[in-house]
Amino acid sequence: MSTKKHVYFFGAGKAEGTGKMKELLGGKGAGLAEMTNIGIPVPPGFTITTEACIYYDQHHGEYPEGLEAQIEENMKRLEETMGKKFGDVENPLLVSVRSGAKMSMPGMMDTVLNLGLNNHTVEGLAEKTQNPRMAYDAYRRFIQMFSNVVLGIKHHEFEFILNEVKEEEGVKQDTELSVQGLRNVIARYLSMLREVEKIHFPQEPKEQLKKAIDAVFESWDTPRAVTYRKLYNIPDDLGTGVNVQAMVFGNMGWDSGTGVAFTRNPSTGEKKFYGEYLLNAQGEDVVAGIRTPNPIDNLPKEMPGVYQQLVDVYQKLESHYRDMQDIEFTIEGGKLFMLQTRTGKRTAQSAIKVAVDMVHEGLITRQEGIMRIEPRQLDQLLHRHIDPKATVEVLATGLPASPGAACGMVVLDPDDACQWVEEGKKVILVRNETSPDDIHGMAVAQGILTARGGMTSHAAVVARGMGKCCVAGCEAIKVDGHGKQFTVKDKIIKEGDFITLDGSTGRVILGQAPTIEPEMSEEGRILLQWADEIKRLGVRTNADDPKSAGIAREFGAQGIGLCRTEHMFFAEDRLPIMQEMILANDEKERRQALDKLLPMQKEDFIGIFKAMDGLPVTIRLLDPPLHEFLPKHEELLVELATLKATKGDQNKIKEIQDLLHKVETLREVNPMLGLRGCRLGITYPEVSQMQTRAIFEAACELTKEGCKVLPEVMIPLVGDVQELKLQKDLTDKVAKETFEKYGLAVDYLVGTMIELPRAAITADKIASEAQFFSFGTNDLTQTTFGFSRDDAEGKFLDRYLEQGVLPQNPFEVLDREGVGELVKIGIEKGRTTKPNLKVGICGEHGGEPNSVEFCHLANLTYVSCSPYRVPIARLAAAQAKIKNG
Amino acid sequence: MSTKKHVYFFGAGKAEGTGKMKELLGGKGAGLAEMTNIGIPVPPGFTITTEACIYYDQHHGEYPEGLEAQIEENMKRLEETMGKKFGDVENPLLVSVRSGAKMSMPGMMDTVLNLGLNNHTVEGLAEKTQNPRMAYDAYRRFIQMFSNVVLGIKHHEFEFILNEVKEEEGVKQDTELSVQGLRNVIARYLSMLREVEKIHFPQEPKEQLKKAIDAVFESWDTPRAVTYRKLYNIPDDLGTGVNVQAMVFGNMGWDSGTGVAFTRNPSTGEKKFYGEYLLNAQGEDVVAGIRTPNPIDNLPKEMPGVYQQLVDVYQKLESHYRDMQDIEFTIEGGKLFMLQTRTGKRTAQSAIKVAVDMVHEGLITRQEGIMRIEPRQLDQLLHRHIDPKATVEVLATGLPASPGAACGMVVLDPDDACQWVEEGKKVILVRNETSPDDIHGMAVAQGILTARGGMTSHAAVVARGMGKCCVAGCEAIKVDGHGKQFTVKDKIIKEGDFITLDGSTGRVILGQAPTIEPEMSEEGRILLQWADEIKRLGVRTNADDPKSAGIAREFGAQGIGLCRTEHMFFAEDRLPIMQEMILANDEKERRQALDKLLPMQKEDFIGIFKAMDGLPVTIRLLDPPLHEFLPKHEELLVELATLKATKGDQNKIKEIQDLLHKVETLREVNPMLGLRGCRLGITYPEVSQMQTRAIFEAACELTKEGCKVLPEVMIPLVGDVQELKLQKDLTDKVAKETFEKYGLAVDYLVGTMIELPRAAITADKIASEAQFFSFGTNDLTQTTFGFSRDDAEGKFLDRYLEQGVLPQNPFEVLDREGVGELVKIGIEKGRTTKPNLKVGICGEHGGEPNSVEFCHLANLTYVSCSPYRVPIARLAAAQAKIKNG
Repeated sequence: MSTKKHVYFFGAGKAEGTGKMKELLGGKGAGLAEMTNIGIPVPPGFTITTEACIYYDQHHGEYPEGLEAQIEENMKRLEETMGKKFGDVENPLLVSVRSGAKMSMPGMMDTVLNLGLNNHTVEGLAEKTQNPRMAYDAYRRFIQMFSNVVLGIKHHEFEFILNEVKEEEGVKQDTELSVQGLRNVIARYLSMLREVEKIHFPQEPKEQLKKAIDAVFESWDTPRAVTYRKLYNIPDDLGTGVNVQAMVFGNMGWDSGTGVAFTRNPSTGEKKFYGEYLLNAQGEDVVAGIRTPNPIDNLPKEMPGVYQQLVDVYQKLESHYRDMQDIEFTIEGGKLFMLQTRTGKRTAQSAIKVAVDMVHEGLITRQEGIMRIEPRQLDQLLHRHIDPKATVEVLATGLPASPGAACGMVVLDPDDACQWVEEGKKVILVRNETSPDDIHGMAVAQGILTARGGMTSHAAVVARGMGKCCVAGCEAIKVDGHGKQFTVKDKIIKEGDFITLDGSTGRVILGQAPTIEPEMSEEGRILLQWADEIKRLGVRTNADDPKSAGIAREFGAQGIGLCRTEHMFFAEDRLPIMQEMILANDEKERRQALDKLLPMQKEDFIGIFKAMDGLPVTIRLLDPPLHEFLPKHEELLVELATLKATKGDQNKIKEIQDLLHKVETLREVNPMLGLRGCRLGITYPEVSQMQTRAIFEAACELTKEGCKVLPEVMIPLVGDVQELKLQKDLTDKVAKETFEKYGLAVDYLVGTMIELPRAAITADKIASEAQFFSFGTNDLTQTTFGFSRDDAEGKFLDRYLEQGVLPQNPFEVLDREGVGELVKIGIEKGRTTKPNLKVGICGEHGGEPNSVEFCHLANLTYVSCSPYRVPIARLAAAQAKIKNG
Repeated sequence: MSTKKHVYFFGAGKAEGTGKMKELLGGKGAGLAEMTNIGIPVPPGFTITTEACIYYDQHHGEYPEGLEAQIEENMKRLEETMGKKFGDVENPLLVSVRSGAKMSMPGMMDTVLNLGLNNHTVEGLAEKTQNPRMAYDAYRRFIQMFSNVVLGIKHHEFEFILNEVKEEEGVKQDTELSVQGLRNVIARYLSMLREVEKIHFPQEPKEQLKKAIDAVFESWDTPRAVTYRKLYNIPDDLGTGVNVQAMVFGNMGWDSGTGVAFTRNPSTGEKKFYGEYLLNAQGEDVVAGIRTPNPIDNLPKEMPGVYQQLVDVYQKLESHYRDMQDIEFTIEGGKLFMLQTRTGKRTAQSAIKVAVDMVHEGLITRQEGIMRIEPRQLDQLLHRHIDPKATVEVLATGLPASPGAACGMVVLDPDDACQWVEEGKKVILVRNETSPDDIHGMAVAQGILTARGGMTSHAAVVARGMGKCCVAGCEAIKVDGHGKQFTVKDKIIKEGDFITLDGSTGRVILGQAPTIEPEMSEEGRILLQWADEIKRLGVRTNADDPKSAGIAREFGAQGIGLCRTEHMFFAEDRLPIMQEMILANDEKERRQALDKLLPMQKEDFIGIFKAMDGLPVTIRLLDPPLHEFLPKHEELLVELATLKATKGDQNKIKEIQDLLHKVETLREVNPMLGLRGCRLGITYPEVSQMQTRAIFEAACELTKEGCKVLPEVMIPLVGDVQELKLQKDLTDKVAKETFEKYGLAVDYLVGTMIELPRAAITADKIASEAQFFSFGTNDLTQTTFGFSRDDAEGKFLDRYLEQGVLPQNPFEVLDREGVGELVKIGIEKGRTTKPNLKVGICGEHGGEPNSVEFCHLANLTYVSCSPYRVPIARLAAAQAKIKNG
């Protein structure tokens, strides 16, 4: 009768499995098999299949037929290979037992090392190694590890005993314990288990092994593991493999040792073997930092033969895996063993250099090189960042809302910010949350810190637009605007104190942390050039001023996909005129104010068009609710109440009452769903007339100067084709008038945002009037989910993400299932009417790699994102093309 | 060569056209042909086809070949039929010229009467009729009418002359003018036209006729007509017919006369000929009310022969048209002529009686009877209404937000309302707008009047739910809460003054207008019974308390489709506990408050379940943002500022500061898109636990008493299936616990609102956890359009409707193109997962006929609407079935 094969051996240069058998052997098992097969010296061992685990789980702890016999048989083979015997008192074989599923899964069983030790074999080990301290320490650790991982006994029971003995011996470190001390620890461990936990610690190695294997099997169904799988949609019937591997010891003497290394420099990417080692030491000693390890460059002198082996091995591994490897090795009695090889973690800079070098070395293709870079990593390269070597005091951590680093003095008021900056100081603006009123302060600050609001809060969006560092929603800080300070727990940070923000991690650091300059290396440019050659999606930028437009162009933007025209109106010299316009009593007064705004707005466009000479510029007409430009209702209320209560000046009271009345007229219960977007332009056509006139006059003047201007007028918040038609007709009329005035014509387009569900659903009708679509996925996400981003983030959305109600924040990563479906409907319907309709996206998602992939799949024409995300989008677009064709 | 037939004659008992040729002859032309053909005496004449009009318009005023000849030929025939001659001085034929398109269209040409008169024929007419006054007056009117309608001269030029002559003669009424006076008027009219307008008034009748016909043709393309067609999607290529008809005169002497009549009573529906007449008079005299007309019952005595003719005619018309007719007739020299017959306008009561009677008479089928009633009319029957006979002083008109009539003293504060009502007064609550804080005042008021907000504003929705009269958004009133008064223009209405509201028309009436009781007649019950037998859709009601539930059941509701659980918490005795719950510092405190709410909530459900014994009751868990239950932020701000400014009590300041802080924590920028709906139940599961426990305990207790309870728990604002699953699991757990406690089980369902675009888009997934869907089309309309109903109505939405950007208010009539499409997607996807999924609708649209038709077409299971709309929905559902099968 033939039974199924449940166990795969590896050792002595040959493995029964291969690197491709991840499904059956788990990731780790497949890796060990692969290394063995390509002749890498790996401590031998065997892997129990994931199928066996599944059987065990489905049969209430029963083994499949033949498994027990196969384990025994493979243990024999392992003993033969190692020349040691499991449970032998003189030359005991010790093994490690580890879990290993197809994909790495937290919540599964940890490693058990030194399995096979007992009261007898420990003596043999001590004798054989001539190192009783090592042997007893290994046994002590094994008891603790096994009890914890396999038997479920809490660590602190052991820590208590360990401390007791250390006190008795008057020592502080574990390593200072005497051999007798360690023996005492072992004895007390065992008696505690016996007396308190009623457990006889298994002395029989075979029993230890069976229990450890069972524990791995069972760890597949722990609640943590089940939850994790549910969250990440990992099927429940994969199971985990079990890896049993012979122990090797780097602390067997001065011909032994241990080390870790990278095949190339993980920080810079330089092609040079990089690592450190310790002789007569175990792996954990390198990590613990008790002894200072030696740089790997010293090894050739100390152990030339071993070093040469190591070089052969690492080169073999790198060319086999075709990527930079992070390796762990142990030398036992002059013999090299590889314990692990895995893809090495690296900085963005290193990742790019390694990828480009490997392409040049012919090791990988350009496509592979591009796929090697996590697009998000590029953020690191494009912003000033905190020197990773510096020691810093982290006050609190908020959301990494806009990357980079910024250092300055704390100010709590935007006006103060302006004044301090005029005095030559650098400031960080700290607010509960920001509003358009704060723009002037934000503009001059080095960085922005808010206590509330999420990744797409006002502060975050504006800061990213400005390419300015921002930490948002840092709930640990309590802002006291009146007291001109903020607190973190019981620490008070006053106005004028220095803090440093790390916008890439969300850290708020006390004092002035050293920062380093961003750098786009030569390799980075090459890589992005390759990406451009591959990608199908265009990449534009969201930019509202010539400076950001210029930066974005530098970063490879192929045009502006969103130029918001309202940000311009928050400027200090314009806000009063804007307010005049809004507070106008009739159309005539409104037109007078608009006449004053026209030349200013025209200047804006001239600057942007110049910066984008030859590239298209999509200009969105006025979008936000008008009351955003007015004094705050609450402030007026308080001012009025105070004036009245103190019997203040009657004229002043009257003045504020009038203003309050106007503000109240414009005030809305849900401004996000109120009088904004094209509803403004339809209600006050003269506003759209002014804006389009400014666009076309600017375009005409520059055309005369020989500049190539490609304006695309974009109508926001359209829900019905009639809205678009009204604004398009108005635009065409103004264009015609302006072209007549200048005696020339400029090619232009009129299109619309698709940012309401109704726009997507009726896109076939809307397309009849639109020359392009641009999906505003910020607003579309808000209305599709019914989430106000101002309210959801930092409130229930956090809880939703914690509880796994939603897998990710839909304001960061485009929700393919809901919002994405509407985008697809919109594109499909739009192209039913106009097959070649140009379709872009200009929400925050345009610079987020997963969302960029969606845009590629949905057949969009281009994505548009903030300037500093342009390189990310270029890379992500290329990856999407490579992945999906 | 045969030319096309452009002109259709009718007269002497035979018409060339028929009633079916509306396309070619227009509605009026077809009607005249039809009457002629069935032997009704109609003044003869002819109709020029709509095709001729189209040709004229497309050929810049050219007539199609043969038209001119055909007109001439038909005029001859008319002369022969009438025995008069066009332009003849002795016995002149006079005609009327009228437009008449396929569908009635305002903006088209008005009537020209008495065409054919000139300086000579007028003498003949005077001679022939022996009535020179009549003849000159007819000529005067003709000049004025023709000049105005055909030549485009403004009326006031003629009025000026007319007044001049009246002054000269020292008379006040036109009718008092002497023959010489009328001759003077005519002379001055003609000279004014000649001198001022440089027009020689056409004296040649043929020229008059041609000009009048051309004017009708041209009126098809006036801007007003074009706009109207665009608005109502009427094709531009229909054209209008031109009707030329012999004039008959009721003022030829005492054997002549004129009258109007209805074939049945238009007010009550009684089957009795009903009308009035005047002898020796023209139609306009009856209307003008200068002489008091006689009731038709007198006619048999005065002119028995003519009366018998009239009876024959009206009976023939009614049985021919199979509907109650509104007829106009003229008697010229003892001869009866019918000038018009059309479907008679009638009250709701009359409409129902006529329909049911006609079914019983075998004249129409039940289906036809049902189709005869405009569902909206039923509103009139179900609410107290203002006696239509009363003379009232209308102060202003707002939106007819909740039908019925209410009379009471003005109060401007909800607390005052309660106090006044306790003192035995009846009050009308007048507010700028209402909020949940005002509920207690609204509950005791007779009616509610608001200055702001639309048809679905808080005031409107709550009032309709309460079956209470409400006029909303009455922008003409200025509410001065502090001054305890409101003003309309310069009229001041003080607290305590009586006003009357007409919720069916939006009128605000000064003083106590007499009102009459609603009445559902026996015929009404029969008709709705027939409707129930025909309709496929179920009709449920939205009711939050036993009283409305009972009313709705009385009106035929088949269950409750939406029971809002939050309205209960606004009651005076509960609000403080609710606030305690919201302001709780931790879960424990919150649970304590909830424990107090549990028995109250249970009592609510017991009452509702009892009222709905045997019918399903859908209960929606807590939905609104919590801050709706708290004091208003603005009020706290003002109170605090005032206290601070006046150095008030420190403890009080502290207390308000704390409350303010809590309110600020809960405050949201866009509450509609914030922490509400199931987000509440997921954030605070203990709230859902309390509510579901109250539901199941109530159900168990009543089941023990033998009551049949069918609870359906509805989870609001679900956007992702995970949200539903969490709340469903919680509900099932509480149900299980409760059933164990009571030792019995009650059948129940758990379902969800579909009120977010994402819910519709992912309905297939949501259906896996839902036992029913209920479309919340209020919220779905808000998110699909991105319109906040609080902000849109009364602001830009009004302008959108005026400008025709949207054809109708989507909060009133379900937007089929956008919202409806999402509803269809939701149903289709939901039923992909569960083919028999029960699907309802519980938005305001559930009681709106057009939307009910959509629900029928979309294959919903039921609609749910406010109690007073249940009969409307029943009728609309039957009509939808009849119309669409």
